[in-house]
Amino acid sequence: MADCISYNKMIMKKIYKIVLLLLVSSCLYSQNNTPKLILTFEDVQTIRESLGKVPLFDHSLTEAKRKVDEVLNVEIVVPIPKDAGGGYTHEKHKQNYNEMFLAGIIYQFTQESKYAEFVKVMLTEYAKLYPTLGKHPQGKKQTPGRLFWQTLNESVFLLHTSQAYDCVYNYLSGNEREFIEKNLFYPITKFFLAECTHDFDKIHNHGTWMTSAVGMAGFVLNDKSLVNKSLYGSKEDGKTGFLSQLDNLFSPDGYYTEGGYYARYALWPFFIYTEVLNNNKPELDIYNYRDGILRKALYSALQVTSSDGRFIPVNDAIKEKNWLTPELIYGVNFIYSNCGENKELLSLAMLQESVSLNIAGLNVAKALADKENIKPFIRRSIQFSDGPKGDWGGVSILRSGSLDDMMTLFFKHGSHGLSHGHYDKLSYCFYDQNREILQDYGAARFLNTEQKFGGRYLPENKTFAKQTVAHNTLVVDGKSQYNGKQDKSQANHSQNYLFNIDDPEFQYASAKENNAYKGVKMQRTLCMINQDQSKKGLVLDIYRVEADDKHQYDMPFYYLGHLISTSFEYKAFTETKSLMGSQNGYQHLWKEAVGTTNKCPQVTWINGSRFYSITSNAFPEQEVLLTRIGGSDPNYNLRNESGFMLRRNDSSTIFVNIIEPHGIFDPKVEFTSGSYSSIENIDVIYNNSNYTIIEVVKKDLTKILIQLANNNSDYKKEHVVSCKGKTYSWLGPISLIN
Amino acid sequence: MADCISYNKMIMKKIYKIVLLLLVSSCLYSQNNTPKLILTFEDVQTIRESLGKVPLFDHSLTEAKRKVDEVLNVEIVVPIPKDAGGGYTHEKHKQNYNEMFLAGIIYQFTQESKYAEFVKVMLTEYAKLYPTLGKHPQGKKQTPGRLFWQTLNESVFLLHTSQAYDCVYNYLSGNEREFIEKNLFYPITKFFLAECTHDFDKIHNHGTWMTSAVGMAGFVLNDKSLVNKSLYGSKEDGKTGFLSQLDNLFSPDGYYTEGGYYARYALWPFFIYTEVLNNNKPELDIYNYRDGILRKALYSALQVTSSDGRFIPVNDAIKEKNWLTPELIYGVNFIYSNCGENKELLSLAMLQESVSLNIAGLNVAKALADKENIKPFIRRSIQFSDGPKGDWGGVSILRSGSLDDMMTLFFKHGSHGLSHGHYDKLSYCFYDQNREILQDYGAARFLNTEQKFGGRYLPENKTFAKQTVAHNTLVVDGKSQYNGKQDKSQANHSQNYLFNIDDPEFQYASAKENNAYKGVKMQRTLCMINQDQSKKGLVLDIYRVEADDKHQYDMPFYYLGHLISTSFEYKAFTETKSLMGSQNGYQHLWKEAVGTTNKCPQVTWINGSRFYSITSNAFPEQEVLLTRIGGSDPNYNLRNESGFMLRRNDSSTIFVNIIEPHGIFDPKVEFTSGSYSSIENIDVIYNNSNYTIIEVVKKDLTKILIQLANNNSDYKKEHVVSCKGKTYSWLGPISLIN
Repeated sequence: MADCISYNKMIMKKIYKIVLLLLVSSCLYSQNNTPKLILTFEDVQTIRESLGKVPLFDHSLTEAKRKVDEVLNVEIVVPIPKDAGGGYTHEKHKQNYNEMFLAGIIYQFTQESKYAEFVKVMLTEYAKLYPTLGKHPQGKKQTPGRLFWQTLNESVFLLHTSQAYDCVYNYLSGNEREFIEKNLFYPITKFFLAECTHDFDKIHNHGTWMTSAVGMAGFVLNDKSLVNKSLYGSKEDGKTGFLSQLDNLFSPDGYYTEGGYYARYALWPFFIYTEVLNNNKPELDIYNYRDGILRKALYSALQVTSSDGRFIPVNDAIKEKNWLTPELIYGVNFIYSNCGENKELLSLAMLQESVSLNIAGLNVAKALADKENIKPFIRRSIQFSDGPKGDWGGVSILRSGSLDDMMTLFFKHGSHGLSHGHYDKLSYCFYDQNREILQDYGAARFLNTEQKFGGRYLPENKTFAKQTVAHNTLVVDGKSQYNGKQDKSQANHSQNYLFNIDDPEFQYASAKENNAYKGVKMQRTLCMINQDQSKKGLVLDIYRVEADDKHQYDMPFYYLGHLISTSFEYKAFTETKSLMGSQNGYQHLWKEAVGTTNKCPQVTWINGSRFYSITSNAFPEQEVLLTRIGGSDPNYNLRNESGFMLRRNDSSTIFVNIIEPHGIFDPKVEFTSGSYSSIENIDVIYNNSNYTIIEVVKKDLTKILIQLANNNSDYKKEHVVSCKGKTYSWLGPISLIN
Repeated sequence: MADCISYNKMIMKKIYKIVLLLLVSSCLYSQNNTPKLILTFEDVQTIRESLGKVPLFDHSLTEAKRKVDEVLNVEIVVPIPKDAGGGYTHEKHKQNYNEMFLAGIIYQFTQESKYAEFVKVMLTEYAKLYPTLGKHPQGKKQTPGRLFWQTLNESVFLLHTSQAYDCVYNYLSGNEREFIEKNLFYPITKFFLAECTHDFDKIHNHGTWMTSAVGMAGFVLNDKSLVNKSLYGSKEDGKTGFLSQLDNLFSPDGYYTEGGYYARYALWPFFIYTEVLNNNKPELDIYNYRDGILRKALYSALQVTSSDGRFIPVNDAIKEKNWLTPELIYGVNFIYSNCGENKELLSLAMLQESVSLNIAGLNVAKALADKENIKPFIRRSIQFSDGPKGDWGGVSILRSGSLDDMMTLFFKHGSHGLSHGHYDKLSYCFYDQNREILQDYGAARFLNTEQKFGGRYLPENKTFAKQTVAHNTLVVDGKSQYNGKQDKSQANHSQNYLFNIDDPEFQYASAKENNAYKGVKMQRTLCMINQDQSKKGLVLDIYRVEADDKHQYDMPFYYLGHLISTSFEYKAFTETKSLMGSQNGYQHLWKEAVGTTNKCPQVTWINGSRFYSITSNAFPEQEVLLTRIGGSDPNYNLRNESGFMLRRNDSSTIFVNIIEPHGIFDPKVEFTSGSYSSIENIDVIYNNSNYTIIEVVKKDLTKILIQLANNNSDYKKEHVVSCKGKTYSWLGPISLIN
């Protein structure tokens, strides 16, 4: 991928453009050279000339006009703030800033004064209201704003209204500008800097929204101090602020530490303000900042999606969100336009069916006019490091199969993920058929739905969704990792051990976590193994635990689909049900059935047109608990989805699990086959801190032998293990004989 | 819609064709004039000339060839019958007859002997095996076959192999034919007629399969007696057999008494054998039989689908089945070709992406080559009568909205529906956004999945899915309608009262059921009412009950989606859960919460991108029970879906429920609005056996007034009611003031 356009080139382009415009349109330069944020004065001239000639751009503008024209003659209402997310005043203020934002842009393209007038009147109303406001009445646990129950929304308000103001700046009289600036823009920025300093200086997406918004207000107010604070923090010492956020919120690979769902949201102000800085502070060469970190961040976020484009819901995440979300339109357009015009981005722009209303959007729309330009976006196996320096572990994604029918395994072995993080180290989730098969619960939240705790994160988000037992990872002694303490979890991270995707038939990732539970060292190794062509691949999951003392080990799996069969007998609680426990998330799990087996437990379920089995290794008196989410949930805040849990009491132990998609269920033609797992037995031949050797026997008597070195990742190192009269030898950290 | 081609016209066409073919191809008429079933000798010549010229026909043939070519050089395996549905031998025999069927057709089109040879060898293997077989080892509760666990599959086997044999008839030597006929076809037909007489003479889809298969064998064996028995029953007295099935299984409107899901399946042999009769017994004029009953049956089945083409799952039904199912390809192709070439059918043929491999399929494929021919299939509000004479009540479908976003209300007020019927009179289900919103549970069955009771109907189908409490209709004293006795339920039926769809803004259906519970008369009236354009419509559901004695009345609703809020307080059983009861389906419901209210109870949930509320009328000490399916289900055979239930103790009473889609939930753009119901109050102003007057008050203080005459459906009759000092007067059985 080409680097972003170099600084010098860009400067030359800019100078050339400005000179040209000065020559041909100097008469238009009557007042301030506005707009100047995302939309620039020069670009507006180019866009006006293109109107009617570039279908997707025209379509996007028409859509924007449709929205604004609907309200242009309706009475402007700027209500006294009252409601939380989802409530009337909340939604009305959101609607207002969006309408002002769009009306401003439309004014620039059409020069029709009614649009500017709309913005003027509404901004003036806000300028009348704002100085009268105290803290928002619904502001509860999170930082309250004045117009909104949380400052986050107030930042978004400022980011949009700054742009609206920028677009109508030259339409307004000096007095009008003074009134609006004095009563709205300065009070908000002052409120942010004086009363929300903690948020402003936070290395967190709320901080990015605030610094970006203040910076944009700074440019349009011609206030260098605001711009400087936005870039370098309230103390202007560079320890916080936008650039520090670019330095610290992404790993060198561009992975956003809160995960894909928040990356999407957090990236929004990053893209917007980067484009603004690109237009107004070219000396920063912002698109190439930190080796093009924003470009990397976009590609990272796009990779952290399932095959149907949904963000893999690690940490707090709403599952409905996918990569068609409007905030990514900016990213796709700006990065396409400023960083090498990668044609894979065009396939996404095509799906988004909309472009940003500035020069970048015009470029994308022009490119899309020729279908030959469009290349499919390829999701691939990849590892992203986590942490500002890339040394906080990371996440691994293993993928196999065609674009239509791809297995995706997302393995989390990074840092906590700030305030939206979950206690889920070494957890994974698994997708097939474009469906979730083993889920990450995501967040307990109904976005903007007032009845559901004002649309905020629900209490069950903390008591269940964040807890370790809500994830497909080991729970020790019924407690969450790091005892559920965010500061401790954030202070530590897992360690990457192996990652290799060279052979598409045998890809693997391995990581270690030694701090989550005192005295317990854990290592999980995940292998995606292709079988012969008639079958789907397998996932082999090896979870090693080292401990001196005995512990209760619970290994939960949250499968989506309908239970078909188990290999073991169980007692089902068919007449009364009780809870799995009283704390750490267990109180939210119903205990549906309990089985005990000395053999390899196997659970088979159906999801869509395929069956899935998890087969685990045997252990004396191993319990299998069938569970369902939804206990201790009087307000029906949780989804009542199914799971099961392996339970052992042991000191050092090893869980080997095979996830196996199999068979066909096609009710359309009334055809079912392969509803049984092909796995007969899993035998742990050898396991200690140095080596692990596992043999999997299938029902057709073929075998898979996995040999693993647990403490040496050198690919040139030869290993030899003797065991039960046999000698096992292999080269490198891991060997598969299939 | 044009009638089927008239008898005379058809005969003339046929004579013309035969004369022509005799002239130009008499040399080819070397032996028996075969094939003659669905595919005829003459049509084969036409089709051969069209090969390579008609894309969809070529595609369908290529698909068939691909399937057969895959197995042509693989060893033929005809296993000893052993397994139930979904098991190896079951699926293998199904695969075998399908492959023979296709290979026979391909042989006719290509004249490549390898295809005929394949059929010959496999049929011969079956002829060797069949005489050695006794009853199938897995034959349990249902009638066992010999090759299959139920005779149904054995009929399907004969229907396919008759066609395969027909296609290779002239390829075989006299000895080969004799061996196959003597050891396979005659034994099966004898088995059916002698040992399965009850099934053969049953007015039921199993009977149709059997008579059709025997009749087709009769034609190819040149055995008139078999043909006569197929048409007129084993006694040839016309009281049973195929024609009697055409007379008795469909109402005069074409509604199939078992419902849409089984209509689809039952229609398959009807279509096949009708086409065979059309080719071989033109004097029956079968496509015009009973005023074109088969054409009506197809259209009825197509109307009984939700907006995304799934069969509305009343009675035993698998929800995954939709109108793209292969069996409907025959219906669409044959009815298109023989009954007026309705272009709406082409849109369905286009979605099916396949045509029947005979002259009808060729006609459809030719028509599809010109996209201009294709018209969208319109689902509309419609009532179908039930019962052979149309006097067993019926079903009503009310629809409103565009093709993309249609509300569909399916109201069942007909007869029981034979052995696949449920005790669900006056129940309904409701769709919106192409989704189930208030569901009919359908059947408890995992089709062909061996682990799930051999793929048969599960025990919970009887103990839950069929029971009244599993449906959105009134349960009296905790019992099912007709005490759960099929013969009693089948001997009675509901009565149609009103149905009017003249005004798309106000459509309604009303029906009565007086026999389901002794001493309890019930009447349900459903109105689909459009609101102003900014809102979706409402459904007003008025359920009147007349009884002298006090009863427990339970009114369950099975909503799909996630509970958002209730208007009443409730006690939630958050730490232990118990069952709703011990019998009649209640044992399969978990009691999750109980509330008691004297006000109008309201329950709001979310499904997809919309909210839904049910608001009910107030009643003193009315209980609302929040339920979940899945109690007493040790094998996880039921889907754990949600519901709630209004409970009152009363004699005569009235339940008024308003189903209200509202608001928008769009997490893509993070926008939520209208999450609250707009209904403030429901007031039953007047209610007795003659009249019901209801006033609905909305939160915006607008009102809806419904006035209903309960015993006079005359549209010219004026009604006057005085009540609480007010006089209410209206014309006709029902009046809406909105």
